[in-house]
Amino acid sequence: MTTAAPTQTTSKDYAQLTALLREASTIGSIGGLLGWDQETYMPSGGARARAEQASVLARIHHDRLTDPRVGELLAACESDTALNAGGSETAANLREIRRDYDQATKVPGDLVAELARAGSEAQDIWKQARAKSDFAMFAPALTTMLELSRRKAECLGIPEGGELYDALLDQYEPDTKAAEIEAVFNPLRERLSAFIADVTENGVPPRDDFMSRNIPVGQQHTFGQAVLEALGFDFTAGRLDVTTHPFCSGMAPGDTRLTTRYAEDNFADALTSTMHEGGHGLYEQGLPKSGPHAGTPLAGSVSLGIHESQSRLWENFVGRSAPFWKWALPLANKHFGSTLSDVSLDQMTAAMNTCTPSLIRVESDEPTYNLHVMIRFGLERALVRGDLSIKDLPGAWNEQYKNLLGVDVPDDRRGCLQDVHWSFGLIGYFPTYSLGNLYAAQLWETINEQIPDLDDQMARGEFAQLLSWLRTNIHQHGRRYTAGELCERATGKPLSADPLMRHLERRVKPAYGM
Amino acid sequence: MTTAAPTQTTSKDYAQLTALLREASTIGSIGGLLGWDQETYMPSGGARARAEQASVLARIHHDRLTDPRVGELLAACESDTALNAGGSETAANLREIRRDYDQATKVPGDLVAELARAGSEAQDIWKQARAKSDFAMFAPALTTMLELSRRKAECLGIPEGGELYDALLDQYEPDTKAAEIEAVFNPLRERLSAFIADVTENGVPPRDDFMSRNIPVGQQHTFGQAVLEALGFDFTAGRLDVTTHPFCSGMAPGDTRLTTRYAEDNFADALTSTMHEGGHGLYEQGLPKSGPHAGTPLAGSVSLGIHESQSRLWENFVGRSAPFWKWALPLANKHFGSTLSDVSLDQMTAAMNTCTPSLIRVESDEPTYNLHVMIRFGLERALVRGDLSIKDLPGAWNEQYKNLLGVDVPDDRRGCLQDVHWSFGLIGYFPTYSLGNLYAAQLWETINEQIPDLDDQMARGEFAQLLSWLRTNIHQHGRRYTAGELCERATGKPLSADPLMRHLERRVKPAYGM
Repeated sequence: MTTAAPTQTTSKDYAQLTALLREASTIGSIGGLLGWDQETYMPSGGARARAEQASVLARIHHDRLTDPRVGELLAACESDTALNAGGSETAANLREIRRDYDQATKVPGDLVAELARAGSEAQDIWKQARAKSDFAMFAPALTTMLELSRRKAECLGIPEGGELYDALLDQYEPDTKAAEIEAVFNPLRERLSAFIADVTENGVPPRDDFMSRNIPVGQQHTFGQAVLEALGFDFTAGRLDVTTHPFCSGMAPGDTRLTTRYAEDNFADALTSTMHEGGHGLYEQGLPKSGPHAGTPLAGSVSLGIHESQSRLWENFVGRSAPFWKWALPLANKHFGSTLSDVSLDQMTAAMNTCTPSLIRVESDEPTYNLHVMIRFGLERALVRGDLSIKDLPGAWNEQYKNLLGVDVPDDRRGCLQDVHWSFGLIGYFPTYSLGNLYAAQLWETINEQIPDLDDQMARGEFAQLLSWLRTNIHQHGRRYTAGELCERATGKPLSADPLMRHLERRVKPAYGM
Repeated sequence: MTTAAPTQTTSKDYAQLTALLREASTIGSIGGLLGWDQETYMPSGGARARAEQASVLARIHHDRLTDPRVGELLAACESDTALNAGGSETAANLREIRRDYDQATKVPGDLVAELARAGSEAQDIWKQARAKSDFAMFAPALTTMLELSRRKAECLGIPEGGELYDALLDQYEPDTKAAEIEAVFNPLRERLSAFIADVTENGVPPRDDFMSRNIPVGQQHTFGQAVLEALGFDFTAGRLDVTTHPFCSGMAPGDTRLTTRYAEDNFADALTSTMHEGGHGLYEQGLPKSGPHAGTPLAGSVSLGIHESQSRLWENFVGRSAPFWKWALPLANKHFGSTLSDVSLDQMTAAMNTCTPSLIRVESDEPTYNLHVMIRFGLERALVRGDLSIKDLPGAWNEQYKNLLGVDVPDDRRGCLQDVHWSFGLIGYFPTYSLGNLYAAQLWETINEQIPDLDDQMARGEFAQLLSWLRTNIHQHGRRYTAGELCERATGKPLSADPLMRHLERRVKPAYGM
């Protein structure tokens, strides 16, 4: 009786702790709706009030996360050996709760509220500035967001042996440093540049004129929805809407919202965006958001790199493959009438695997994509360091696009105004995109070993076993393991760039007759 | 110097008080988005999380409204004679702040949170039950909402000489009792019944077969938007979406959202719904939500009766008039192609002014509309009194529809499940619809006296002077005056049912050749 008592008491502490976190999570999920609505349906006149709402709610959320009772209950749980048994779910959850609590308590509520307000305002300004291709219009808001982000980074603290940027990066990719990213990116940049040079100099570009044929938005939308349904996205627990910049918001249990965008002369852009966000959405729908861990870290995504591995896997490894198009081309023809009826499977697959340096990250092909990310990583790191000023950003952007991708940026809309991230204060976020590509490639090799007939399944429009593999090996674990651990558990190896390079060789060179 | 000091101090109190209320109002406005989204775009799987969000947010909102600091600052302001100078805006605001504070502090936060959660859940169940016409499916949720509403009414307290229902009614139509409503409704019911009997027995019904011609939803939508634009609705500060039950949410400054619904064989239903919600929306856009009174009672609507006067004025007094159709029929023909091109102005006007007892309140014509309201008022009052049980509601509903309107209710979807209100716990709300009709009629007579050429203006599609009159006499005042005072200030007379009866005589009888 007496030995059991402490455990019971502490379990009550754990129950109270998770109840507090669950309520905080609910408040956070309301913030998700504020953000989604701002991007989708909010009239422009609502922008000022929305910034106010975001700010007030962010402070309330932060107050809950940093509630001293959370700290007390957490400490009590940490001192309970039963809860901290090695490898247990509660131990993992307490580790992550500690991480979140320590991070949250380092940042003052005023700064959190100010970041939310300024981010909401800056996002609105960005949208207008982008439409007008007017960087000067956006510069003051970006200056504010950079300044606030630097202040936040200073509150979070520079990790040992690191730099200020690392404190921001750590929010998105825990325990990762810019120097480590750089150590991955530098050789990858060389390998990719060499690959791109090889293909563009020695290969024959596939025909892709048919990719710009006019396909009405309505037809593209029903096709995209049909693809998402087949992949396994649950539309009773989600939606697909249209925004300037596609995104996925896993805003609440049972409520995952995707957005995409349509251009009548570029159906592949919408499709890849839809499948990309769909990949994020499938991850969100697979996280253990209901049940005992609801509202706690264990129910959340482990890192943005892993999140991005899911989106890129569906977008590229599935969505640009020949087996996928064996199924999807007839489906497209059902939706698009005769527009693409003269296009063969080989032609479509080749056109989906081009290698053409271009201006827009989210429209770029697989071989060049990571170069877009590397440019952003270098620029935002320089901004945080103070080595680059906001006013010099467009020039530096354009110069790097010329140097690395060989393209001339005609205007800032297609240059440094193209992405939404910095307007929200998402600085330190971009490198996770390339980590995602690396994780995706490594997962894909393992998946194909473990599901040998996956190509045949995809060619029949069957994705259930693939999704089940991802659910089992990635989704269901939430934040139980670190990103690195999750990768090793799933693939048996630490993260490497080799699978990505092998994948590009196999996919792109055949399209160029190499 | 010494005499000025106290005023300065107290003005600081007033500034602090209004700052607290402004933040509470911002939190309330987030709740507005939760509700709007639930009705418009939320996937069904999000219902459980939404109920949780609504509940958590309602409690936070309530905590802010009942913050003891609000009470202290309010008391300090009330004892400051400078702020309470008769007729001043601050005096009116303090009167209304006191009213809100006293009401809020009477209701425990637990009950507020429970009402929000249960209302969100019940709303979702109602939507499903209505689609299936399954009252038994909805009955438990309705029982919960009635029980919670009764508990809330008991907390608010029965006003002197009143009944429990009055405490609920008072939330929507301040300082109004059920007995007073009854005293208005009883003679009005007789006058309306006599009018309807006269018209249906002695008149010749106008031709209205063309009203059910098929008009695609897209055409109806662009027509509705064009009408709203012409009325003066600001689409940069608002939207129009589609829902099961049309509504208007003036959710935040600069953000007023309307919804409507479309049936391809009943374009007039969508148009009148759109104009109705548009009238609510014009009121919301005209309230003093920005400036010094932002977020305080003075920025809010005075009562639902007045709110409804605005919707019904645009829907009926404008939208069913010959001058309106002189402008709108050619506009409709532009949007609808040749579908209505053979319909004359006289035919359209007559068809918009029929008198046919029917099943659905929001589709009913002007003469019969108030009878639908009276049935609901009697039933919900009996429910609150305990004179009627939930299980007997469908029977009682159907019996009264037979007795008062002479129609047989074929199923509960077109019976007691047709309206969303009770699912949200909006009990005591319905009678304000008829008050709105009475106010609208009385305002309309005054408006036409003061704008003698209003008919000519409307026939040219010009509504600016009408809107300006409403802005000046109704909208801009917010809650500065009571509903009764506002009516007397605007029309010079206390509220009477005579203008409504005169209006029906003038409008409906000509359509029936009388």
